[in-house]
Amino acid sequence: MALNFPNKKPIPKKQINKANLGMDLEQMLNDSNEFYLANDIAVIHKKPTPVQIVKVDYPMRSKAVITEAYYKVPSTTDYNGIYKGKYIDFEAKENHNKTAFPLKNIHPHQMSHLENIIKHGGIGFLIVAWNLYNEYYLLPFEVAKEYWDNAIEDGRKSIPYEIFKKRAFLIEESYLPRLKYLKVVDEVYLNK
Amino acid sequence: MALNFPNKKPIPKKQINKANLGMDLEQMLNDSNEFYLANDIAVIHKKPTPVQIVKVDYPMRSKAVITEAYYKVPSTTDYNGIYKGKYIDFEAKENHNKTAFPLKNIHPHQMSHLENIIKHGGIGFLIVAWNLYNEYYLLPFEVAKEYWDNAIEDGRKSIPYEIFKKRAFLIEESYLPRLKYLKVVDEVYLNK
Repeated sequence: MALNFPNKKPIPKKQINKANLGMDLEQMLNDSNEFYLANDIAVIHKKPTPVQIVKVDYPMRSKAVITEAYYKVPSTTDYNGIYKGKYIDFEAKENHNKTAFPLKNIHPHQMSHLENIIKHGGIGFLIVAWNLYNEYYLLPFEVAKEYWDNAIEDGRKSIPYEIFKKRAFLIEESYLPRLKYLKVVDEVYLNK
Repeated sequence: MALNFPNKKPIPKKQINKANLGMDLEQMLNDSNEFYLANDIAVIHKKPTPVQIVKVDYPMRSKAVITEAYYKVPSTTDYNGIYKGKYIDFEAKENHNKTAFPLKNIHPHQMSHLENIIKHGGIGFLIVAWNLYNEYYLLPFEVAKEYWDNAIEDGRKSIPYEIFKKRAFLIEESYLPRLKYLKVVDEVYLNK
């Protein structure tokens, strides 16, 4: 019988690549960004969740407590920062569907924000997690935009999985960083 | 008697440069950034205030209410974005003192964040409002850093007003944008 550390069940080899199931995309990206920062590769952070603060209490001898606040619609994307001197900006979305990524997941001002970023010389994209397949893609803004504009014209409101296979870029998973998305940025945007 | 628009009192000329008294720095910067965005000059946004959300209620037929949350210490600066293809990052602070800007206003990780940004090829600085003088300065990170490091060594914990006069850059006020801080960025960082 093999030795195991206390409280740890043996992990069958086949399940290893499912290790991230249950870990959400945000956590994986935050871990990756922490790795990139600690190793002087890039400075990319998630922006705080935008909240409208209405009421704050100041109990004696303890810190301020926000007792009434509301979620606000974000006016920009979730992540931005700098990599190799370039401004980087992206939105991250999880997709639980099997055949298509619904565009209702993206806010209109997030699309126009990314469009502005690109116009000003930055790099803008989406990262989409296909949870059923445990796959992560970098979706160039231009591809998203094409389907976004079509959606307005002919009622289609999603990007099919085949389009991800053809026109988005699979992000490699690893231990450190969890998602090697800057490797894809190198290949797609910096011609490396 | 001169004609005036209804509900508007004549403004004596001498008071015009005091028009911003009572308007806080954050509002002035947000207005300026809105102007820069609307005129396709730059895409710079204030990050939301970081908040740790503890409890959320979902009342029937109305939107989610956050009922317990706490302010978190920010891990980065307040503002970032892109201007002429360059990554821009800064922290904005109001100063109510008469002779010096106390460095306790700045968090240590904001300083190391700005240092990282510059190392990766971005432009990083502080904008400091001297409320008593109604003056706004762009303070290069390098100058702030010098005094920050000194503070640790010899106990000085502030940057004197004379140093702002000598080594920071006065930001011009105008109607649109309220604070022409990108003009200073041009002159200081982009050699224009």
